[in-house]
Amino acid sequence: MAQFSIEELETKEKNVARPPSSLIYQEDSPYVHKVGIPPRQNIFKEITATLKETFFPDDPLRQFKGQSGSKKFMLSLESVFPILEWGRDYNLTKLKGDLIAGVTIASISIPQDIGYAKLANLAPQYGLYTSFVPPLVYAFLGSSRDVAIGPVAVVSLLMGTLVRAEFDPITNPTQFRQLAFTATFFAGVTQTILGFFRLGFLIDFLSHATIIGFMGGAAITIGLQQLKGFLGLQTFTTNSDIVSVMSSVFSQAPHGGKKYKKLFWVSAIAPLLSVIISTFFVYITNAQKNGVIIVTTIQKGINPPSANEIFFTGSYLLSGIKIGVIAGMIALAESIAIGRTFASVKGYHLDGNREMLALGLTNIAGSMTSCYVATGAFARSAVNFMAGCQTAASNIVMAIVILLVLEFLTPLFYYTPNATLAAIIISAVVGLIDIKAALHIWKIDKFDFIACLGAFLGVVFYSVEIGLLIAICLSLLKILLQVTRPQTAILGNIPRTTVYRNIQQYPEATKVPGILIVRINSAIYFSNSNYVRERILRWLRDEEELLKANYLPSIQFLIIEMSPIIDIDTSGIHALEELHRSLKKKNVQLVLANPGSVVIEKLHISEFTDLIGHENIFLTVNDAVETCAPKMVKQEEA
Amino acid sequence: MAQFSIEELETKEKNVARPPSSLIYQEDSPYVHKVGIPPRQNIFKEITATLKETFFPDDPLRQFKGQSGSKKFMLSLESVFPILEWGRDYNLTKLKGDLIAGVTIASISIPQDIGYAKLANLAPQYGLYTSFVPPLVYAFLGSSRDVAIGPVAVVSLLMGTLVRAEFDPITNPTQFRQLAFTATFFAGVTQTILGFFRLGFLIDFLSHATIIGFMGGAAITIGLQQLKGFLGLQTFTTNSDIVSVMSSVFSQAPHGGKKYKKLFWVSAIAPLLSVIISTFFVYITNAQKNGVIIVTTIQKGINPPSANEIFFTGSYLLSGIKIGVIAGMIALAESIAIGRTFASVKGYHLDGNREMLALGLTNIAGSMTSCYVATGAFARSAVNFMAGCQTAASNIVMAIVILLVLEFLTPLFYYTPNATLAAIIISAVVGLIDIKAALHIWKIDKFDFIACLGAFLGVVFYSVEIGLLIAICLSLLKILLQVTRPQTAILGNIPRTTVYRNIQQYPEATKVPGILIVRINSAIYFSNSNYVRERILRWLRDEEELLKANYLPSIQFLIIEMSPIIDIDTSGIHALEELHRSLKKKNVQLVLANPGSVVIEKLHISEFTDLIGHENIFLTVNDAVETCAPKMVKQEEA
Repeated sequence: MAQFSIEELETKEKNVARPPSSLIYQEDSPYVHKVGIPPRQNIFKEITATLKETFFPDDPLRQFKGQSGSKKFMLSLESVFPILEWGRDYNLTKLKGDLIAGVTIASISIPQDIGYAKLANLAPQYGLYTSFVPPLVYAFLGSSRDVAIGPVAVVSLLMGTLVRAEFDPITNPTQFRQLAFTATFFAGVTQTILGFFRLGFLIDFLSHATIIGFMGGAAITIGLQQLKGFLGLQTFTTNSDIVSVMSSVFSQAPHGGKKYKKLFWVSAIAPLLSVIISTFFVYITNAQKNGVIIVTTIQKGINPPSANEIFFTGSYLLSGIKIGVIAGMIALAESIAIGRTFASVKGYHLDGNREMLALGLTNIAGSMTSCYVATGAFARSAVNFMAGCQTAASNIVMAIVILLVLEFLTPLFYYTPNATLAAIIISAVVGLIDIKAALHIWKIDKFDFIACLGAFLGVVFYSVEIGLLIAICLSLLKILLQVTRPQTAILGNIPRTTVYRNIQQYPEATKVPGILIVRINSAIYFSNSNYVRERILRWLRDEEELLKANYLPSIQFLIIEMSPIIDIDTSGIHALEELHRSLKKKNVQLVLANPGSVVIEKLHISEFTDLIGHENIFLTVNDAVETCAPKMVKQEEA
Repeated sequence: MAQFSIEELETKEKNVARPPSSLIYQEDSPYVHKVGIPPRQNIFKEITATLKETFFPDDPLRQFKGQSGSKKFMLSLESVFPILEWGRDYNLTKLKGDLIAGVTIASISIPQDIGYAKLANLAPQYGLYTSFVPPLVYAFLGSSRDVAIGPVAVVSLLMGTLVRAEFDPITNPTQFRQLAFTATFFAGVTQTILGFFRLGFLIDFLSHATIIGFMGGAAITIGLQQLKGFLGLQTFTTNSDIVSVMSSVFSQAPHGGKKYKKLFWVSAIAPLLSVIISTFFVYITNAQKNGVIIVTTIQKGINPPSANEIFFTGSYLLSGIKIGVIAGMIALAESIAIGRTFASVKGYHLDGNREMLALGLTNIAGSMTSCYVATGAFARSAVNFMAGCQTAASNIVMAIVILLVLEFLTPLFYYTPNATLAAIIISAVVGLIDIKAALHIWKIDKFDFIACLGAFLGVVFYSVEIGLLIAICLSLLKILLQVTRPQTAILGNIPRTTVYRNIQQYPEATKVPGILIVRINSAIYFSNSNYVRERILRWLRDEEELLKANYLPSIQFLIIEMSPIIDIDTSGIHALEELHRSLKKKNVQLVLANPGSVVIEKLHISEFTDLIGHENIFLTVNDAVETCAPKMVKQEEA
């Protein structure tokens, strides 16, 4: 069937259209700087540059440039094993800091590890295993100096619930454990792949607000779960009261430590102290006979190998991959956020992709030595930092302490009451509920708060995955909405300057008679091109009605301030063409000010610049106004 | 466990940090205009404004303001039935235009309708039904003056394939038809809901490039399907040659019409003419006995009611809804695109949401009168426009012609060869393959072209839905990528001006010694906040290495030109805080230039403005440079 292009339709339409514009342009305009059209780039160069900026924004091979062969080899070894880099400058002062920090974090880790293993529905020794091998491996590969590696509450909960959906941990402990190792293996593989293919930016899609909400929700879930154990216990015996009271007293200590930095030691040793005291009390009162549930046997000895337990084939391989991907991403998000925080406080650079690679290899190694997913733990890392850690060697110190515990001290935990561990977990996760941050988010950005709340409620009322999904979708929706309904503003001249700004932000800015200056605060894409076009026409209509009501001269020039228009696509150019056509019907000239290099290039290629005329494109709004104002046709003449 | 905030960590860190900045600030800076911080808005007002701009950007109740009660009633009637508005000024001249246009489009519609019904796997009369009731209903409700309503090729194909997945049209024609009506009903409901709840912007997510690719793919699919019929036919008989040759001759006519506008009549009557001639030939040669497949009986009489045939309950309700939603969206996208094109050519305003409401009600009415999904057809509308239609009355004229055909002329089509209809369909869909537009997209925007190609290949090699899904995902990915890796630029002063621009776009722009000016071309969101921070630090590092190599003074001020930063979220503010911290370690002062109202408000609430100091926020880059330059510390002193 017949197809007619816009030009043909326009030619046809011209016959019935109004007479051509009565605007008469003057030749002599003041000198204005021309808008630069960047030289056409080679298409392959362009694609290479885009890919490089997407995947290698940190230019990882930069330090190799202009180096000799042997130097290059050393540098590559160092980039794989950062320990070679910081190990060279290692000295006694540093060792002292790392020793103290390592022993301190070990003292928190031991009770936490036993408790977290329970969260993950695993036997207590698996928590200790996960605090032994992974910190050792990470110490050689990781680039953060402050992150302390081990099991964390949220990932333990995640693993516990996701794996339980496949196997019952009570009736089927072997297969449960096997699937946990499988998931750990694939969590490591996921992290390695993300790091190796430099897809670290995917982690950025877990926004700050999302993580706050997610962590808070997970903390509430864990807390309630532990509290239930508490309450159930109280109906059996009153003996446990002493335990719970004592534990809650000690669990308050961290808050003291928060206020008085010198007292952070109290919070650091409180967990172990409360374990020792409560264990001692249970032992001498024989409380376990009165219903106080205790840890009982923790298997002695270091991590047994587990590579043969991983499901590399069979129907559970897929579940393992699924759980691994989720747990791996969450673990990464937590660790990277922590690492970045400390790196910025100490002022060193943390390479996110290298960090992912390190964590990934750590977890792969862990999955073969009976560990579940390990990652950087916030509380532990904060204590590490406060205790004066200098390098990743503090992780080695911690691992050695755990090794000693595993080899010699596990029988000491036989009488440790579970309630104490529950209290320690509760006090650990309470710190994850960051109400202050949530209020801050509410104050700054309501939509962020909704994403935060969505993650929180999703985790509390549905599940960890649903909560995450809700939050990610909300975050993406926000980006899309912003690109769908960009802000627009009318600009006015700020008195005694050549500057034009939003008249709502700067009420002193004055409009220029006969000229309407509009700014679009977004790229013009298919998702907003129609809105932008209609919004500009609405600004014009509103303005003209206002002018008409006040018997003022009507608008003859419409200037679009293009500075914030960072990109335009074919739909956007279409919209501009239609806008130009609509304005022509109204005898209004479209003028562009300060289009960026990408935009001007596309406008040039699409011949839109020819359509509106190169003389109507200016470097600044001021240039445009100064050129247009003298061209203005008096209303009587028009 | 202990939690420590950044401030506490920083306090601790200070003890080991370097001595405070050696920069000495001078008191007497030149007069600069202050950056306006907009007054805090009421939260409800803010939300209301956002919702209004999202859903009512066109301010639909605007015309009701300050009108009397009876006038308001008339206006609301007119807004529901635009025919009341244009009907008042209707006159003989307009009637003449509409009569000619209506008869012309009817002449194309008749053979197309019969062919399209076959594409939809329905009996031929259903195509004619769909060209009778829907145009009538639309004429009363629609606001476009040029769109011609009826079945279209792509939607027919879509319905045909999607419904066939549930019922076989040969063995199960009744249920097939029922599901088609059900889908039509829900297509109408979808469109009505989109229009009523003003969700028209969702349609914008089908980008121009996507539609080009999608239409091209659908055209190829339809064309190949029809061509297969052709080729199969030729093996039976050579008699059909005459038909195919004749048809192909006539199908070339539109291309003639494209070049010579006066000849568009040829293309407009060619289909009907070729039907008449080929039918006559078959009739006199009895070609149907030699294997030429003919239309045979078309049921006489107008649309029978079909409301009772719709599946309102049962297991096929869900399939009906699914097919309806897809078909409804595609139909809308086609019709709205066409309506907008003609509205912009003739210079009137088309209300997208009202248009959706009209099409939705049209299809609901259609589903109850044995029609399948109708929408604005491009080729038909173009002919309508070229033939000089004045109002939607041309649709009424067409409907009346179709009525006459249904009542009296269906027996005439008994001997019409299917091959002619196939040729007509092929020539109709050939126009949908817009290679020129695809090349144009390639030239302007490579990523758009990938989306276009994705839609095309998806439709050709998989299915209509897969093609659409691919294209929409690619389009969204593009937006997200752009927000993930925003462009950044180093700015320089353009000689003899106070203007600062990208030094790559304007090679004549010069850097200011000791000051690095960076522009970020995007909102700073969670998805890019880390990238932006690291990118700025990389610019600084590269610049400092360059300066060092040339023994030039190092950077003391880093100015961020904030004009393109249209929004910032909590992650973004976090990133700025970290950037500020990193810069402080390097003795570089962070300075902001021209933050927009949204950004400055958020920076203010989050107390970031206090952190960097209000004196370091400027209205323009030039103000910032002029204030910072005298403050610069000589390198010898530093």
